[in-house]
Amino acid sequence: MQLGMIGLGKMGANMAQRLLQGGHQVTGFDPSADARKNLEGHGGGSADSLKALVQALPAPRVLWLMVPSGKITDDTVDALLALLDKGDTMIDGGNSNYKDSLGHAAKCKDKGVNYVDCGTSGGVWGLAEGYSMMVGGDEQVVDGLKPIFETLAPGKDKGWGRVGPVGSGHFTKMVHNGIEYGLMQAYAEGFSILKHKEEFGLDLAQIGNIWRDGSVVRSWLLELATDALSKNPEMDGIAPYVVDSGEGRWTVNAALELNVSAPVITLSLMERFRSRDDDSFTDKLLASLRNEFGGHAIKKE
Amino acid sequence: MQLGMIGLGKMGANMAQRLLQGGHQVTGFDPSADARKNLEGHGGGSADSLKALVQALPAPRVLWLMVPSGKITDDTVDALLALLDKGDTMIDGGNSNYKDSLGHAAKCKDKGVNYVDCGTSGGVWGLAEGYSMMVGGDEQVVDGLKPIFETLAPGKDKGWGRVGPVGSGHFTKMVHNGIEYGLMQAYAEGFSILKHKEEFGLDLAQIGNIWRDGSVVRSWLLELATDALSKNPEMDGIAPYVVDSGEGRWTVNAALELNVSAPVITLSLMERFRSRDDDSFTDKLLASLRNEFGGHAIKKE
Amino acid sequence: MQLGMIGLGKMGANMAQRLLQGGHQVTGFDPSADARKNLEGHGGGSADSLKALVQALPAPRVLWLMVPSGKITDDTVDALLALLDKGDTMIDGGNSNYKDSLGHAAKCKDKGVNYVDCGTSGGVWGLAEGYSMMVGGDEQVVDGLKPIFETLAPGKDKGWGRVGPVGSGHFTKMVHNGIEYGLMQAYAEGFSILKHKEEFGLDLAQIGNIWRDGSVVRSWLLELATDALSKNPEMDGIAPYVVDSGEGRWTVNAALELNVSAPVITLSLMERFRSRDDDSFTDKLLASLRNEFGGHAIKKE
Amino acid sequence: MQLGMIGLGKMGANMAQRLLQGGHQVTGFDPSADARKNLEGHGGGSADSLKALVQALPAPRVLWLMVPSGKITDDTVDALLALLDKGDTMIDGGNSNYKDSLGHAAKCKDKGVNYVDCGTSGGVWGLAEGYSMMVGGDEQVVDGLKPIFETLAPGKDKGWGRVGPVGSGHFTKMVHNGIEYGLMQAYAEGFSILKHKEEFGLDLAQIGNIWRDGSVVRSWLLELATDALSKNPEMDGIAPYVVDSGEGRWTVNAALELNVSAPVITLSLMERFRSRDDDSFTDKLLASLRNEFGGHAIKKE
Repeated sequence: MQLGMIGLGKMGANMAQRLLQGGHQVTGFDPSADARKNLEGHGGGSADSLKALVQALPAPRVLWLMVPSGKITDDTVDALLALLDKGDTMIDGGNSNYKDSLGHAAKCKDKGVNYVDCGTSGGVWGLAEGYSMMVGGDEQVVDGLKPIFETLAPGKDKGWGRVGPVGSGHFTKMVHNGIEYGLMQAYAEGFSILKHKEEFGLDLAQIGNIWRDGSVVRSWLLELATDALSKNPEMDGIAPYVVDSGEGRWTVNAALELNVSAPVITLSLMERFRSRDDDSFTDKLLASLRNEFGGHAIKKE
Repeated sequence: MQLGMIGLGKMGANMAQRLLQGGHQVTGFDPSADARKNLEGHGGGSADSLKALVQALPAPRVLWLMVPSGKITDDTVDALLALLDKGDTMIDGGNSNYKDSLGHAAKCKDKGVNYVDCGTSGGVWGLAEGYSMMVGGDEQVVDGLKPIFETLAPGKDKGWGRVGPVGSGHFTKMVHNGIEYGLMQAYAEGFSILKHKEEFGLDLAQIGNIWRDGSVVRSWLLELATDALSKNPEMDGIAPYVVDSGEGRWTVNAALELNVSAPVITLSLMERFRSRDDDSFTDKLLASLRNEFGGHAIKKE
Repeated sequence: MQLGMIGLGKMGANMAQRLLQGGHQVTGFDPSADARKNLEGHGGGSADSLKALVQALPAPRVLWLMVPSGKITDDTVDALLALLDKGDTMIDGGNSNYKDSLGHAAKCKDKGVNYVDCGTSGGVWGLAEGYSMMVGGDEQVVDGLKPIFETLAPGKDKGWGRVGPVGSGHFTKMVHNGIEYGLMQAYAEGFSILKHKEEFGLDLAQIGNIWRDGSVVRSWLLELATDALSKNPEMDGIAPYVVDSGEGRWTVNAALELNVSAPVITLSLMERFRSRDDDSFTDKLLASLRNEFGGHAIKKE
Repeated sequence: MQLGMIGLGKMGANMAQRLLQGGHQVTGFDPSADARKNLEGHGGGSADSLKALVQALPAPRVLWLMVPSGKITDDTVDALLALLDKGDTMIDGGNSNYKDSLGHAAKCKDKGVNYVDCGTSGGVWGLAEGYSMMVGGDEQVVDGLKPIFETLAPGKDKGWGRVGPVGSGHFTKMVHNGIEYGLMQAYAEGFSILKHKEEFGLDLAQIGNIWRDGSVVRSWLLELATDALSKNPEMDGIAPYVVDSGEGRWTVNAALELNVSAPVITLSLMERFRSRDDDSFTDKLLASLRNEFGGHAIKKE
């Protein structure tokens, strides 16, 4: 198929490359000339504006957005809508909040443009192994895009699927990331307990390796943790500072809205907040309070 | 009544003083000559060894232990038992684990010595306001000690009681402290949220003061937090480092043994662990893992 | 002062009554004729429509809204705005989300109407003991309303205050309720641990009473818990079903927005969700999963 | 090698069978004649008492214990020790608390018997796929047992290893299970959020299948969850009642002893407690307390 890729960053560039390898024609747009040149080097076309991109594609057009969620996606959807015609299709493959996607879809519908939200997992490994894609949109629209998804996925019928109507793709991806937070935190806590049991002198990478085969906790994340621990057993030079990129919060918000108790996913997120606060007001007030009622010594800063 | 006080630290000295003010006769033992001299200054007697203390008291003797829990209490109970006679009474007013108290009581019973465990709350405020005491022991033994408890308590019939058999005093005090952890954490989290809402420029001490009257969250701990926030609104010079003294862990252990879900008390304890770990292996591994699967940047130490 | 009270439910009726007792003139509006008649019985005036209420008050008018938060408050603000003149004042004393209040204030400002948000705590006890009020709004506007707040509060200068600009009153009240959730959960967990330690046969109400004096955990909520445990030690006939009325969720949302880790407040909320889900899908899947990997028996429904 | 297997339940029988398939000679003991007959049917020998088992094996003997942890393991170790000679080896392959294992090892050492603790994971799948084994013990003793571990493991050098001295095998397995609790809870919470988003009508098994390839959350547990959801999408007939078998508690205890904050593992355990308490005293007291201060209605039982 022929497709326009908007956003040629880490993710977009790799996805375009995988599509090209799969025999599709990809024309890419990115504000960076280097990014466009890079795509050309892999056999794709390029356009230096959204307008040029839209003009370069035959109708009905298919455009894949792979840009940062939030304002940039909002603005891109708006700009694109002004350029597209009835029957064209827009796929948001980024990490948009599913509520934004519902809004984008409504705008598109008004103009007769098809909208598909595709939650994409795979990170830096997707180019080689394929991307996991959770797709939301009208059944016949998604059907028409099958060749694209089948190429991007780990296998023709593997690792991707239409999970429901518009919005459900990003919703499912959001929950995927919430689960990811919980899984990561569970492994990290476990390895930390092992690490602190100093008298046993445990080799965490060795243990991770043992668990890779036959154990109940085997997983891809375990393999990555094991690799990380092999390369850097003491985590030297790494600050205990854990970023979150938004999906975890949205998952907690969804849990709150749906009245679902999700303590583990929620705590995993809050532990990340805590990791980034090396001057916790909460803890200072607690220390101060202990001093107030018990005369307990306060550690000075 | 006549009573021997073992341990004249912060708590023991104040309790002896309150007993003396209440008309009781108190002879105190402490390894520190200064501590003994201080008690004499308040009208008490003193002894420079456990043996001397025991000899200074008329039978049946009443001895109040106010020493650090764990090994020191264990050793003191053993040493004392070798000196006491049938019918004497030992009261452990310290923060012993209730399981230790059950063990101490069994040893005492073998020799016909009465054992009473008294969980004591009140901190630095007890001398002036009276101590909250949760007492475990045989009903008639506790009855015989009433004059002591009535003097130490905030009022004759207030702030103290026999809650059950031996062990139950320290068990109840342990849970009291577990609750205390949860209450403190709830206030500290709330004030921290207020603090971080910078655009409102909230005065936390003012808010604490408002809440002192008529609000649902009014409490003694709130008053202390308000005082602390009045004196030091930014918590300047206080490290975000929160000590725990053991009862919180025991409360969690009790919850585990009793199959009671106690997430808030447990998390309050674990937040204290976290506050003391400024180089969290858990968080470093999480940051490393994010890099492994997503190529996300790692903050360097 | 002269004031119009909109909403004569449990809270509004009691507040009107306290104002009347304090020498203010109160005209009330409520769709229920009984509610209006009740206010008249306490010496107030009444109006059977918002329009009639506005007409009954001298300019510049002061109107206190005490209606359910959300759509009803939104609609009332809109309806009222159409009737008011420049210089009139609207006070929202209900449990509105502070973001809604910011929106209401902006609308009012456009028409020159003053807007004040007042977070009110006190529940069924406020009539007798006074209400705790956290007030947000322009300084001079709040100053002009002082006589009202001084009468509603537990004391002239006690239990109320202007905490900051518009929105900050409801924000502070929201966090107050978040703290309340945490405090309640801490007590409930603690009493539950005591309850489950069956061999000690503890009397929870007695213990609550002991803690009322001199203990670190003394508070108004403890007094209420003690009363509840005195009246119904086994909690007979009470379903383990805990409602939340919204402020807890908003507090968690605020923590997420502000990057503040607030595990105890958050867990307290989620435990309430859990209490209302007697058929947890999470737990069923866990049971099913244990069976899948370990062949562990599943309890049948 | 030649080996005596003590305990021919689900796990022991399968392990004996896998050893037999690997060319080892296995003599088994179990109180159940059926279990012994079953082993004979697979080509093993059997003994109807520990004594007979010990006599049937050539010195130096190797005995593998696969019996329930706690008292039964304690008693078996004691009984066996009375029958063994210097140079014999005992392997505890069950789920013993590592502290018990340290005690068992000390007893064995006194008599010159080798002791090895082997934490075993694999459940009902081990027979076909091999067992994950974390082994603690003296290096040369474990070396001598290599042929056994290599056969039981998923591969000669895969899925097993000596992780450290005596005790470290069961410690590592304990943490493995703690992690497992966290992983399971994360998946279950995530699927529950998906389930409750009713307007999207999501097919959880389909989503689990998508995630199996290319996604960050792919794992063996996810595959099992997907299978479970395929077979029974609504979890019909399954009670929301989740058992824990001890290792989770021990992991939390270890975290407490080591001052490691492990909120996710801990909460996963406590959620299991909560799942088994359909009449939560905590929640009843909360409901009662809400009524006390706010006059909120209580749901009747």
